[in-house]
This record gives sequence, structure tokens and C-alpha cells, in this order.
Amino acid sequence: MSAHTPPVLLPVAGQPPRERADAARNRSRLLDVAARLVAEHGAANVTMDAVAAGAAVGKGTVYRRFGDRAGLMLALLDHAGRAFQEAFISGPPPLGPGAPPTDRLRAFGAGLIEHHLRYRDLYLAAELPPDRRYTDDPPRALYARHISGLLAAAETGGDTELLTETLLASLDPALLAHLRAQRGMSQERITAGWTDLVDRLLG
Amino acid sequence: MSAHTPPVLLPVAGQPPRERADAARNRSRLLDVAARLVAEHGAANVTMDAVAAGAAVGKGTVYRRFGDRAGLMLALLDHAGRAFQEAFISGPPPLGPGAPPTDRLRAFGAGLIEHHLRYRDLYLAAELPPDRRYTDDPPRALYARHISGLLAAAETGGDTELLTETLLASLDPALLAHLRAQRGMSQERITAGWTDLVDRLLG
Repeated sequence: MSAHTPPVLLPVAGQPPRERADAARNRSRLLDVAARLVAEHGAANVTMDAVAAGAAVGKGTVYRRFGDRAGLMLALLDHAGRAFQEAFISGPPPLGPGAPPTDRLRAFGAGLIEHHLRYRDLYLAAELPPDRRYTDDPPRALYARHISGLLAAAETGGDTELLTETLLASLDPALLAHLRAQRGMSQERITAGWTDLVDRLLG
Repeated sequence: MSAHTPPVLLPVAGQPPRERADAARNRSRLLDVAARLVAEHGAANVTMDAVAAGAAVGKGTVYRRFGDRAGLMLALLDHAGRAFQEAFISGPPPLGPGAPPTDRLRAFGAGLIEHHLRYRDLYLAAELPPDRRYTDDPPRALYARHISGLLAAAETGGDTELLTETLLASLDPALLAHLRAQRGMSQERITAGWTDLVDRLLG
């Protein structure tokens, strides 16, 4: 999934900057409402109407802002992905800096399992074809750099690049969706499996 | 990839059984030629013409047997997959029975890396959508049963089902194709990474 960047807003004569800040705030508020509705009802059940009602704005406002439901869902995935990225890059430990690398790796997997499972419908719909899946996905590249940095900090040894790919493969959105929805595994069980995997790999 | 079964041949009055045995032999010979050409030139470069020439038969024979190039490639994947399955189920050790489970697991991964990389163009083209990828793929189900049986025999402990999924995910055809073709990793390096992974996971 490539990052969805909002259109660049060039200064317009006669339009005060204040309006742009308001627009960004309103956009962010709509996405927070959408994120809450996804958590409560699953992405498949979230409509433009429900987001409008939840944010106490007209349906037209949601359409003007995101174009259509697909546009809203893409913006939501980007919004939620960025929040997770901020958390592991600069948030509080153990997910963010300040904890030992093994603790951070355990917390990273738990966080990504939570994120991928919460938005699994959207990730499945947005999956790239195999020849672009590993090259055209900036968040995945960021996750790989983060994991390999933690493996190096923990002095794991071995082939860090390949260990990183194995760890990331076990957190793949399509695999996690299968384990949760088609095999009926709980998120707790999947997370415990990640912890065990990290402990075995890092010895 | 679901198994491709040849059409059931019902006995036909006036047609001796001998003819069916001949047909099966000819079919198998054409697939052996196709497999050799894939190994030498890559699947993308194997044509119906080349298979006909390699088997010293007319092009029409190859078309009658497999319909079109896609049909030939599907039959080839099934043919090669069955050969690999026979090797790990009943072939000589360490891939087949008779070696310690850890040795068998190392050999299984090395064999599946070889198989998936050799036929990577075909596996990428035949990849199932995410909601069917883990449920409608009989060979994958067989690999999972084999791996989890070896983990149990090696008394690995932990969550065998999840460890199996992690190991299989690291052998995914799309991931291996990416590592080999887009990241330029050698098959030797990928195989060494598998051995290291098994050693770490099994302790």
C-alpha cells in the first residue's frame, strides 16, 4: 500500500491560512470518527453516512473531503498507519525508544498485529500484486528498517536481512486475517506466538 | 494453486487400455521436456514450439494435449509439485523418511526454495487472492502438515500451528521471487538463511 498524501495546498490570494488549518483539523476529526467506527463495527460496515452522523456534519461534507468511500478508506489507512509509525519511532517505550531492543521488538509485533487486524478488510482490498508487493510499499520498507535496526541493536547475529523478512512475513496482513477470520485464532494467541518467535530467534 | 487433475478417461469400446498408458507416458514425457526447458531458460521463455521440438513431436500434439500455453504451464506446475511431494513423503533421506526431524526440516526448506524459485514465474502468475490463498491450496496444506509433524517429532514446543505458519511464510513463492529477482540474493544465501532459521527456532 503506497502512502496516500493529501493534495498540496498552495497559498491562495484572499484565503487566510486559518482556513487551511481548520480544514486539516476537520479532516483529521472525520478520520478519527471513521477509525472509531472501524474499531466498533469493522471496516466493511462503515458508511459515509455513519461517518457524517458520528462527526455531526452533513453527508456532503464527507463526500467533498474524500470523494467516495474508497477515498475515505484509503485516507483512513494512511491516517492510522501514520499514527502507528509515530508510536514506534517517537512514542513512549517499550514501543518507542528507551526500552531494550528485544522489548521494543515484542511491542512492535504486538502493535502491528493489532493494526493489521483492525484494518484487515482494507489491507486485503488494497494488497499489491506480487511483483510490486515488496518494492512499492513505503510503510513495509519502514517496518523492515525498524526491525533490522532492533535485531542489530540486540546483536542477534545471522543474516539480519533474511531474519527481518521472516519476521515481517509472519505479520503479513493477509496471513493475519486468515489466522483470525478463517482459523478462528484470537489476537491474544497470535500475539503470544509473536513473543515466542522473538524469544526463539533472539535466543 | 489448486491441483490440476487430468480429465478422467473412461473406458471406450474398441479402444485398448494400452492406448491410455501410452497417452499418459507421452504426456509425462512432454512435461519432463518442459521442466528441463524451464530449468535452462526460465518459464517465461518456454514456448509450445520449443516443447514440441524438444520432444520430437509435432506442435499440434502439444496443443491437443494441453490446450494452450497456460494449460501446459498449469500441468507442469502440478507435475513438478507432485515430484517434490513424493520426494519429501517417500523419497530418500534426509528429505524423505529416515533422517532426524531437524535434518528433514532443513532439507524440506532447501527443496521448497529450489522448487519455488525454479517455477517462480508460474507461481506468481497463479497466485490466489488473499481470501483464498491459505484455504484453497492443497499443496500448501500438505506442506503445513509436513512441517508441523516434523516440529512435533523434534519436540519443538511452543505453538506448533503458528511456528508452522511462520516457517511457511518465509518460503512463500512471491517473497522468494522478490528476494532472488528484485534483491539479487543467491539461492545459496536464501537456503543458508532457512537453515539458520530452523536452528534458531528448534534451539
